[in-house]
Amino acid sequence: MGQEPSPPLDGVRVIDLTRILSGPFCSMLLGDMGADVIKIESLAGDPVRQQGHHKNGLSWYFASFNRNKKSVVLDLYSRDGKAALEDLLRDADVLVENFRPGVMDKMGFSQAHLEEINPRLVTASINGYGSEGPYTDRPAFDFIAQAMSGFMSVNGADDSQPIRAAQPVSDLIAGLYTAFGIVSALRGRDRDGQGQHVETAMVNSALSFMAYLASEHFVTGKNPARTGNDHPLVAPYGLYATADGQIAIAPSNEQILQKLLNEIGLPNLLLDARFDDNAKRFAQRQELHDILDAALASDTLDNWIQRLNKAGVPAGKVQTLQDVFSDPQIIAQDMAIGVPHGKHGNVRMLGFPVKLGRTPCKARLPAPELGEHTEEILRSVKSASTTSN
Amino acid sequence: MGQEPSPPLDGVRVIDLTRILSGPFCSMLLGDMGADVIKIESLAGDPVRQQGHHKNGLSWYFASFNRNKKSVVLDLYSRDGKAALEDLLRDADVLVENFRPGVMDKMGFSQAHLEEINPRLVTASINGYGSEGPYTDRPAFDFIAQAMSGFMSVNGADDSQPIRAAQPVSDLIAGLYTAFGIVSALRGRDRDGQGQHVETAMVNSALSFMAYLASEHFVTGKNPARTGNDHPLVAPYGLYATADGQIAIAPSNEQILQKLLNEIGLPNLLLDARFDDNAKRFAQRQELHDILDAALASDTLDNWIQRLNKAGVPAGKVQTLQDVFSDPQIIAQDMAIGVPHGKHGNVRMLGFPVKLGRTPCKARLPAPELGEHTEEILRSVKSASTTSN
Repeated sequence: MGQEPSPPLDGVRVIDLTRILSGPFCSMLLGDMGADVIKIESLAGDPVRQQGHHKNGLSWYFASFNRNKKSVVLDLYSRDGKAALEDLLRDADVLVENFRPGVMDKMGFSQAHLEEINPRLVTASINGYGSEGPYTDRPAFDFIAQAMSGFMSVNGADDSQPIRAAQPVSDLIAGLYTAFGIVSALRGRDRDGQGQHVETAMVNSALSFMAYLASEHFVTGKNPARTGNDHPLVAPYGLYATADGQIAIAPSNEQILQKLLNEIGLPNLLLDARFDDNAKRFAQRQELHDILDAALASDTLDNWIQRLNKAGVPAGKVQTLQDVFSDPQIIAQDMAIGVPHGKHGNVRMLGFPVKLGRTPCKARLPAPELGEHTEEILRSVKSASTTSN
Repeated sequence: MGQEPSPPLDGVRVIDLTRILSGPFCSMLLGDMGADVIKIESLAGDPVRQQGHHKNGLSWYFASFNRNKKSVVLDLYSRDGKAALEDLLRDADVLVENFRPGVMDKMGFSQAHLEEINPRLVTASINGYGSEGPYTDRPAFDFIAQAMSGFMSVNGADDSQPIRAAQPVSDLIAGLYTAFGIVSALRGRDRDGQGQHVETAMVNSALSFMAYLASEHFVTGKNPARTGNDHPLVAPYGLYATADGQIAIAPSNEQILQKLLNEIGLPNLLLDARFDDNAKRFAQRQELHDILDAALASDTLDNWIQRLNKAGVPAGKVQTLQDVFSDPQIIAQDMAIGVPHGKHGNVRMLGFPVKLGRTPCKARLPAPELGEHTEEILRSVKSASTTSN
């Protein structure tokens, strides 16, 4: 006791064969929690090293998803490369990869062989459709997963075509589920000594976010409608005009709606026979929208946000990223951090969304140069195996 | 050995004070991994019990987010209720709540007091903006978190207004991060005996999904544009017309693009001076779109999906939920399951996106009736405390 407490995943060694996004996001989450992540790259390196805007010779996209990792270059098609990987896996806790199903087998690392090498190993796969079923061999991509999962079908206005989320949601959801699955499997392994395989598919991940839209579909048999910024069932809800900009308002129940109406000077609106229950409000939602716009014209956006939140009504505005990173709340939450990257200078990147009280996540290591730790890591593995022989 | 392996979170007791969505999703994920989740409800119960379509007296929305939990009714404003909660926490591993910051303190359960009751307890909070900073007291709601986080600013077409994702993404991302944080903190606790506090804010969670859009913003200083279904940098990419419906195509690099062009009968298109690099293709993307549509008109959507995937080009279609749940891949992945709920009958709900090889997630328990386990749980806690005295 008395010493600096170690992070939750301290001492967990992750061998990371992933590249691009879903996998590197997953292994970054593990690294942020203190795991020792060894990123295995081909001589060409993770393609993301070449993507996005560069500054001082570094892709900030690459930098932001590969903090807290070390880089080891191995040619996994060569005998030496395979042998080195096998050495690494013998002492590792986790292997994570995001190849298409079957690629690991072809490389000579079937699940059965991995269990032979190290029965305590937790092995994790992130892929497009899952390793069982007719689409297993299909190549995956976020946009396609959004389309195939139903995620896209409900996004957009009712008179527009379905629209993707601009964020790579299926990559990120899959990466996050996999990190959760890996840590859970490690906890199981710590109890009974046996690793196991964790698998998450991008399509299943995006589908899981259909949440109550899926429940409603199961119980009614109907497809959910596209309703843009309107709520499919509740009114008022959405974007309204103030004196100088649009306000986002979401009164989640009748009590909060009454608070909203009190604050905007329409305390008796719910006594009006046109609006006295949600079904009527929903049916006349354009008329209601106009009435609210008229009332909200009396003050500015920022004042309304202050006033409504104070009154207990969830309210905000559509912030751009420039707005977001100058927002005092985002600053107080350290959601943009600067990480020194040696000759590449200081890189700004997103902070840590999971806040731990005793052992907060830290950027312990900047994103590595390609192969920066090849010698250090391979030597340590070799000397460990010499010692144990 | 030889017996049925127990699930990864077997023996972990979670005291769950959450209601609505973000928190119940988090505790469901823990329950799916085998934790013993005790859902504490007021006499009125989780409001979601009344929401969404009901069948045989049960909300399927409630049922689908509250599997693998037991329900205990406690009045946390009464002395007896507080004492019962304290008894429960003494032997628990995790406490999770999604009140506004400060509510737990007002109830008499400050972090300091929780540590006194049980220093091994992992305590977790999910809230709107985080418990530090100027917006701490603001009420939270998914739509507002999407707006305030920048998530909404990039969704929609360039000539439309920003548009929310129809899915409650900020609730779900926050719940998933919290589950990951909790299991990580448990692993830390198993090593050094000390619990800690885990906190995740909905706004930070949605912001974290800005991924490379945030990296690009940091390095260029510019706000990302809204580009609808077009990729902001790459062409071709998006929805194209076939003989009988729209196909989603996303060739992620030049090699895959060439495979696409070979398959659709335009093998020499990249030799055309108008299209021989991505910048030109992007500048003439409408012309390129028309050329692709003309080529794709020669076959049906389903045939093209087969052909293109076989050729190594990610391709699919915008599936509705009806399409999704009759898709042979989704069926092979068990992404819709049926769970018997006694007198309420069989409830269909989403399956498990994280597949574990040795100890697969199971619906061990249906969503509980309000207070169904009050007596059983409170009796067991009382007899345990009698035994230990």
